[in-house]
Amino acid sequence: MAKLVKKNYLMAPGPTPVPIDVLLEGAKDTIHHRTPQYLDIQNKALDNLKYLFQTESNVYSLSSSGTGAMEAAVANLVSPGDKVIAVNGGKFGERWCELCNTYGANLIQIDVEWGKYLRPEEIKKVLEENPDVKAVFTTLSETSTGVVNPIKEIAEVVKDTDAVLVVDAISGMLAEPLKMDEWNVDVVVTGVQKGFMMPPGVAMIALSDKAMRLVDGCTSPRYYFDLRAYKKSYPDSPYTPPVNLIYQLVESTESLKNEGIENIWERHRILADATRAAVIAMNLEIFAERPGNVLTSIKVPENIDGKGIVKFLRDDWGVTFAGGQSKLKGKIIRIAHLGYMSKFDIIIAISALEMALKKFGYAIELGTGVKAAEEVFMKEGV
Amino acid sequence: MAKLVKKNYLMAPGPTPVPIDVLLEGAKDTIHHRTPQYLDIQNKALDNLKYLFQTESNVYSLSSSGTGAMEAAVANLVSPGDKVIAVNGGKFGERWCELCNTYGANLIQIDVEWGKYLRPEEIKKVLEENPDVKAVFTTLSETSTGVVNPIKEIAEVVKDTDAVLVVDAISGMLAEPLKMDEWNVDVVVTGVQKGFMMPPGVAMIALSDKAMRLVDGCTSPRYYFDLRAYKKSYPDSPYTPPVNLIYQLVESTESLKNEGIENIWERHRILADATRAAVIAMNLEIFAERPGNVLTSIKVPENIDGKGIVKFLRDDWGVTFAGGQSKLKGKIIRIAHLGYMSKFDIIIAISALEMALKKFGYAIELGTGVKAAEEVFMKEGV
Repeated sequence: MAKLVKKNYLMAPGPTPVPIDVLLEGAKDTIHHRTPQYLDIQNKALDNLKYLFQTESNVYSLSSSGTGAMEAAVANLVSPGDKVIAVNGGKFGERWCELCNTYGANLIQIDVEWGKYLRPEEIKKVLEENPDVKAVFTTLSETSTGVVNPIKEIAEVVKDTDAVLVVDAISGMLAEPLKMDEWNVDVVVTGVQKGFMMPPGVAMIALSDKAMRLVDGCTSPRYYFDLRAYKKSYPDSPYTPPVNLIYQLVESTESLKNEGIENIWERHRILADATRAAVIAMNLEIFAERPGNVLTSIKVPENIDGKGIVKFLRDDWGVTFAGGQSKLKGKIIRIAHLGYMSKFDIIIAISALEMALKKFGYAIELGTGVKAAEEVFMKEGV
Repeated sequence: MAKLVKKNYLMAPGPTPVPIDVLLEGAKDTIHHRTPQYLDIQNKALDNLKYLFQTESNVYSLSSSGTGAMEAAVANLVSPGDKVIAVNGGKFGERWCELCNTYGANLIQIDVEWGKYLRPEEIKKVLEENPDVKAVFTTLSETSTGVVNPIKEIAEVVKDTDAVLVVDAISGMLAEPLKMDEWNVDVVVTGVQKGFMMPPGVAMIALSDKAMRLVDGCTSPRYYFDLRAYKKSYPDSPYTPPVNLIYQLVESTESLKNEGIENIWERHRILADATRAAVIAMNLEIFAERPGNVLTSIKVPENIDGKGIVKFLRDDWGVTFAGGQSKLKGKIIRIAHLGYMSKFDIIIAISALEMALKKFGYAIELGTGVKAAEEVFMKEGV
């Protein structure tokens, strides 16, 4: 029996596909990092990042995963006993809580049901009751549920208090609008393996002056992630930077900057709209109460093997979606439309999903989802 | 006037040159890290690392620079108030001391004059006076001075005490003999941008059972570097691993394992011998009291501009040596013979050095150093 060529399609919310031009930058000769030649390269990347973060503040790059930048935020802002708020509405909000506990914070944990979004009024209420809160830890796009939180409105609530607003934008940045300075967001952390179209290994963090003042007074122990060292050596790095990944970061950020931030957000919006239209046309239910541009989380229909279908798609057809994490295991399927993805990637995702669902026993007329996605693309004129 | 082609030669002690086969692995498609496909890849790398560390213990890979692995060692072994010893014989020994202070250790700092090596008797004496010491932090190859410390003999002294021996082998591993289990070294930390022939961005750490018991009882705050999480998810990673760098780590460690650890040490020994023979033939003085196979540190002759010659070699001739760090700025030149280097790389290094020294006013007959290096290679039959 003939066998088709099997290609691989990475459609999970990070790592995301990497353009060949970016990959090849990583294959260039490694140069020494303590040279003006390298410093020029890193400086270019960091400059581009200011634009993409929409900030005038320095953006620091760390040799770590995104979690490293999250730890940098907590270890540099929270002294033992400090009162802080962290919002747990999914696996990554939970990580903020764990980090705050690790550093001995007096933690006010706001639990948001997984799949729901954070109401700004709730933050407002807790801040009014606790005017001594030093920091509020939130998530732009909660990757585990597909929810996007209204950071602009939350920042409105936090900005006139003594607290700093910290946003985990690891999966959200570039896919979702985020204007750090204009919105008064104090700290933004992110990673490169999502909207930046890069292999993982670099995380970034930027801080407002208000946040930087907390850093200077913070008594928590930290060394590798001590932001005072990064500030002092900026735009250089205190420790060996991941040289070849920084080559790639220049390539990726140059191209993103040329595209323009509004265009980047808009392209993600269109992919998300098309995906969602397809999902609804297929009579599937979207899990997130307030879905964003990063990914679409779909409730696994009754009597369908949620884990099995994700495994089958990946191993047999080469299409990698993400399943559910923690308490959502087997209950949702997550399709990312993040980073280096064309409209035809969405068509592939939807086509793969409808064929696999049918194979797994779901009643669906083939083509239904694809048709709906195509209609969105035609209407948008893209 | 005709201009020659200028090629670049990286001869600093990290990052070191990367073979094209390793570079190209980094340009392969990024796959999702939460898949059996990726786990197989990472598992292969970690297995090879056990052999290269000469240990039966797990080796954990971190997405960080080498300093991250140093912090992992301190944050997981040292609780506030614990009595520890750290040896400061250069910039990297100093880093151990800074880390121990950061984590609130009761630190006994042993100062070794920069350029000298650590006497095992000194550790023995301090341990006898302080039987409650929990850990001894040392450096295999002190990159800032070119000194190699006698770790085997130091381990002899530490092994029958309650203390664990921690070795920073970041630049030393693979260039210098190090048998973790056989020598009773409890903790080894290293990075990939040295003997492993890789671009920077991955650090590694392995711990004996004796050390793992300290980790479990340690009360210092840590999250990203919490080794309990790495142990629990082994061979998987608790946070997003640097996927493309791990592809490269498989390529590099496979080839190193096939070469054989004794052969790796021996090839470094020969390059170091040839370099040193050349330096002596050029009437230059070696800075390190106990020089190793990683690099040769050379005292800058009187009346020669030490910073200027390093800059000139790099910018005009494309040959990157390292100068001195901290208090050694301008006083030494460091030539690495580490990782992916052939005998002709040493010839280039020596030839560049003799021509540049002459240009900068040092009295030397051209060819003197190269001749001496060639004689070593001929005698060794390589």
